[in-house]
Amino acid sequence: MKTLKVKDIKGNLNEEVKLCGWVRNYRKASSKLRFVIFRDGSGELQCVAFKPDMGEENFEKVKQLTIETSLEIIGIPRKHPKFDDKFEFHLKDINIINSAIDYPIGKKEHGPDFLLSQRHLWLRSRKQNAIMKIRHTVYFAICEYLNNNGFYRFDSPILTPNASEGTTTLFKVPYFDLGSAFLSQSGQLYLEAGIMSLGRVYDFGPVFRAEKSKTRKHLTEFWMMDAEAAFVEYEENMQIQEELIRFVICTVIEKNKLELELLERDVEKLKKADSPFVRMTHKEVIDLLKSKGVDIDYNDDFGAPEEEKITENSDVPIFVEKWPKEIKSFYMKRDPENPDLVLGADLIAPEEFGEIIGGSQREDNYDILHNRIKSEGYDLKDYQWFLDLRKYGSVPHSGFGVGFERLVQWMSGIRHIREVIPFPRMINRINP
Amino acid sequence: MKTLKVKDIKGNLNEEVKLCGWVRNYRKASSKLRFVIFRDGSGELQCVAFKPDMGEENFEKVKQLTIETSLEIIGIPRKHPKFDDKFEFHLKDINIINSAIDYPIGKKEHGPDFLLSQRHLWLRSRKQNAIMKIRHTVYFAICEYLNNNGFYRFDSPILTPNASEGTTTLFKVPYFDLGSAFLSQSGQLYLEAGIMSLGRVYDFGPVFRAEKSKTRKHLTEFWMMDAEAAFVEYEENMQIQEELIRFVICTVIEKNKLELELLERDVEKLKKADSPFVRMTHKEVIDLLKSKGVDIDYNDDFGAPEEEKITENSDVPIFVEKWPKEIKSFYMKRDPENPDLVLGADLIAPEEFGEIIGGSQREDNYDILHNRIKSEGYDLKDYQWFLDLRKYGSVPHSGFGVGFERLVQWMSGIRHIREVIPFPRMINRINP
Repeated sequence: MKTLKVKDIKGNLNEEVKLCGWVRNYRKASSKLRFVIFRDGSGELQCVAFKPDMGEENFEKVKQLTIETSLEIIGIPRKHPKFDDKFEFHLKDINIINSAIDYPIGKKEHGPDFLLSQRHLWLRSRKQNAIMKIRHTVYFAICEYLNNNGFYRFDSPILTPNASEGTTTLFKVPYFDLGSAFLSQSGQLYLEAGIMSLGRVYDFGPVFRAEKSKTRKHLTEFWMMDAEAAFVEYEENMQIQEELIRFVICTVIEKNKLELELLERDVEKLKKADSPFVRMTHKEVIDLLKSKGVDIDYNDDFGAPEEEKITENSDVPIFVEKWPKEIKSFYMKRDPENPDLVLGADLIAPEEFGEIIGGSQREDNYDILHNRIKSEGYDLKDYQWFLDLRKYGSVPHSGFGVGFERLVQWMSGIRHIREVIPFPRMINRINP
Repeated sequence: MKTLKVKDIKGNLNEEVKLCGWVRNYRKASSKLRFVIFRDGSGELQCVAFKPDMGEENFEKVKQLTIETSLEIIGIPRKHPKFDDKFEFHLKDINIINSAIDYPIGKKEHGPDFLLSQRHLWLRSRKQNAIMKIRHTVYFAICEYLNNNGFYRFDSPILTPNASEGTTTLFKVPYFDLGSAFLSQSGQLYLEAGIMSLGRVYDFGPVFRAEKSKTRKHLTEFWMMDAEAAFVEYEENMQIQEELIRFVICTVIEKNKLELELLERDVEKLKKADSPFVRMTHKEVIDLLKSKGVDIDYNDDFGAPEEEKITENSDVPIFVEKWPKEIKSFYMKRDPENPDLVLGADLIAPEEFGEIIGGSQREDNYDILHNRIKSEGYDLKDYQWFLDLRKYGSVPHSGFGVGFERLVQWMSGIRHIREVIPFPRMINRINP
């Protein structure tokens, strides 16, 4: 007798097989008929327990099942009488592996704090399971696009010495006799060394922000994909970002039909976002916000409420480009047409999901960068290696960073960032 | 005129094209003839600068080239007169982007400390470039095998609360009002929660070990792939590991022919390792080591010198299995045939590359695991969530962790672990 996964049922109909998994739920229809929803990680299956088919003894075992009990099921998978793409499993016997008594997550509403404390169990819920599968798809869609476009994976370090940009949002780690290290907030500077060897590189790892924010948009530990490319300038940098995001959208729609349905994600909205992205300058956006009554100035950055307003009438993401130099990083190249602006753009997702990418062309002139580091008050010796990249064969180059969890949120339609990462870390939570 | 990458030359012979990159090296053949080795990250190209073809003025520019100068080259790629799979680029003109003056890494021998201080430049060398490309291949070969075998990516947290296993080799991070967090050494325990939702999961991220070791095998920050699978027992766990490693070997041989050649890797040795792996019990290994004159006892673990001896006469990796329970972790399942042993195995690579995998079946019985945690002296409340996994639908399950850098070392034949990660972190180094 074959042992199968739920996902392989389709090719093994009408023969006796075995599956291993858990009880998602069960229902008594009559004294002779019960239904069991079985799950095994690869999918779910409705099982029919009919006493005359199973016999008295085996049917008694089915009556003992509880939610989340682990078991083997033995029986015959058949086509669902009504739906062509669904299947029913006609039980012949079951073997209980471990009975779950009083599984703590029930059907009643639980508060977020309770669920987060039970994260190790909460992950089993239909919704959390679907989100994790979409997360997997988004991760590899990003990698696939980059690998197919000449980018090499290049892992930036997490433990970094460089803290002269300001340490208020950095986690500090005592490091042997060398004093302190800091947990990385972005691998970008290291990627700029990588492109000089490999042409195009990316990292995709955890980054850390010791921010005292408690909003539904903040984690202290989250995943970021930073990409960097030699000989790519401002315009092409945005083209790469747009192609990447549209590739992710199409891949999720193709591979996660079931999960999007279960999450009641409006797929039409995702499909609409797969069209040319809109571009607005920072100044145009400020004008737009002012026209909507927002109290904001031409040198201001945006918070979440502003980001939501920017895309509220757009089906597609919006690039906000050419920011005032004062509110962007020292390494961004200045706009040759207006030296008060930088050649940088942030990408804001529609449907109130906020900023998902920040990118720019990088300053590649040694003297300009040197002076800028000095005038920012940073310690030049911390940046000497970074300046070396402008000394020995400097080239025009650009890059961008994708907030992975933000992108997963948007794809899956989940409002709280804490649900799109297996074990969220927040200012008040590092457990379990 | 097309702008190409070196890797696309093959399909664009005999037409005038442009490429952007760097000078790897150059050579004067005569007053009228020079050769320039050009590189762009995607590959290398020999350029021929012949004064009568280029004209006086353009040839003068070629004479100014220095190592690592960035430039555009314009000319015609042609088949190499002697080698069918090689190409020559006949220069018509060049545009220097940024001259590199006195590039610090030359042809003379540099000490490791100097090279590590120049890591941001050292990465450009032929050898380091080749290693990074092999690292990329190994990373995605691992992911491809797992994705094709029902595993979902499931990112374990890096900031973890759990320190009762002992904190001597853990990096400690002050964490807001919650006291301290610790940087993860392995995501395994979290993966065990993941399998109860997704069936099979893996993480692949940085892990940290604050070990005061200065050997060529130690990093404080390195990458680990942990995999975990429900309903997989001891024997199948080893089969998965063997299939995975053999898939990686075949993929590297297929995709990195050029790089392996450049590194002078003995590919025949890699090919030979793609055969059924050997299995020995821990006891058999101790007997073997004793027979080789090693002073070792039946309850001892191995260090690097012992690992090298274990595989010195083997072409294939060796699973060392069934270890004494005293020297392995509390979560490993005991051997039903001998309760003093655990159902765990370490995989030792040939050619002195040492341990690359540690794995085991996990204890799935609540009471046994509960008592073991207690008797180890750990705090039960730290492990309650982990025990919950044995309370609500526990299932037999197994997993393993691959030391990514060790595997890259073996594939590329590199003796020092510091060369197989972009920016190595060691006890005495967090710069650059």
